[in-house]
Amino acid sequence: MDRIPILRMDDVLLVTIQVDMHDRLAMSLQDDLTAAIQRTSAKGVVIDISALDVVDSFIGRMIANISRMSRILDAHTVVVGMQPAVAITLVELGLSLAGVDTALDVGRGMRLLRSRMAASSLAPQIDTDDDEN
Amino acid sequence: MDRIPILRMDDVLLVTIQVDMHDRLAMSLQDDLTAAIQRTSAKGVVIDISALDVVDSFIGRMIANISRMSRILDAHTVVVGMQPAVAITLVELGLSLAGVDTALDVGRGMRLLRSRMAASSLAPQIDTDDDEN
Repeated sequence: MDRIPILRMDDVLLVTIQVDMHDRLAMSLQDDLTAAIQRTSAKGVVIDISALDVVDSFIGRMIANISRMSRILDAHTVVVGMQPAVAITLVELGLSLAGVDTALDVGRGMRLLRSRMAASSLAPQIDTDDDEN
Repeated sequence: MDRIPILRMDDVLLVTIQVDMHDRLAMSLQDDLTAAIQRTSAKGVVIDISALDVVDSFIGRMIANISRMSRILDAHTVVVGMQPAVAITLVELGLSLAGVDTALDVGRGMRLLRSRMAASSLAPQIDTDDDEN
């Protein structure tokens, strides 16, 4: 297993990170995901990290990067399933994932994505934060 | 990583198998999944095996078992993302996954599940096969 599978759910791509990320795996995920967004015209990306007990600054940066890359390709990113201990670690590391949307589980993440996508299609500059937590 | 994460999308649970399954992991997946169905009252289970290049008779049986267990707990199971080579291997092994619904990707699997769930809620004994491929 040297690639993380990217699942397609209509116009949303779902990535479940289950293994420890090393540099090469993170790079191939960035490549695969941006290629998949382009190929499928996906409008949203959900990244599930519920299997991760530990998130270090490397993974934190990778998530932030993926979110930015997706945004340039006109797709919104939501990170879901973060364990409480991971949130604590991220803040202690000084990584507050600014600009990255989060949700408790995939279902909520999908709803948040839908609202973002709807807001984008109406007026690209409007940012609604009411669904965020 | 000694557990496969189970993602919740409202009333559907999503399992992405990314690692080689050994006996203990398969047993814990069965336990975790049945417990999750009961805890969340899920009506459907999507098992993604797109990351698997090889499926042996052990995994084939495990998938069939999970599907039967879920059915007893009133949840439908759809296996998605099977690679062509895996389908060939399964048939050659004599495992045709009878009674297990399959779909090409998660999006189609979700639609198949919705139609199964709708059919079940109308009349539990009616079986519609029109969405299957």
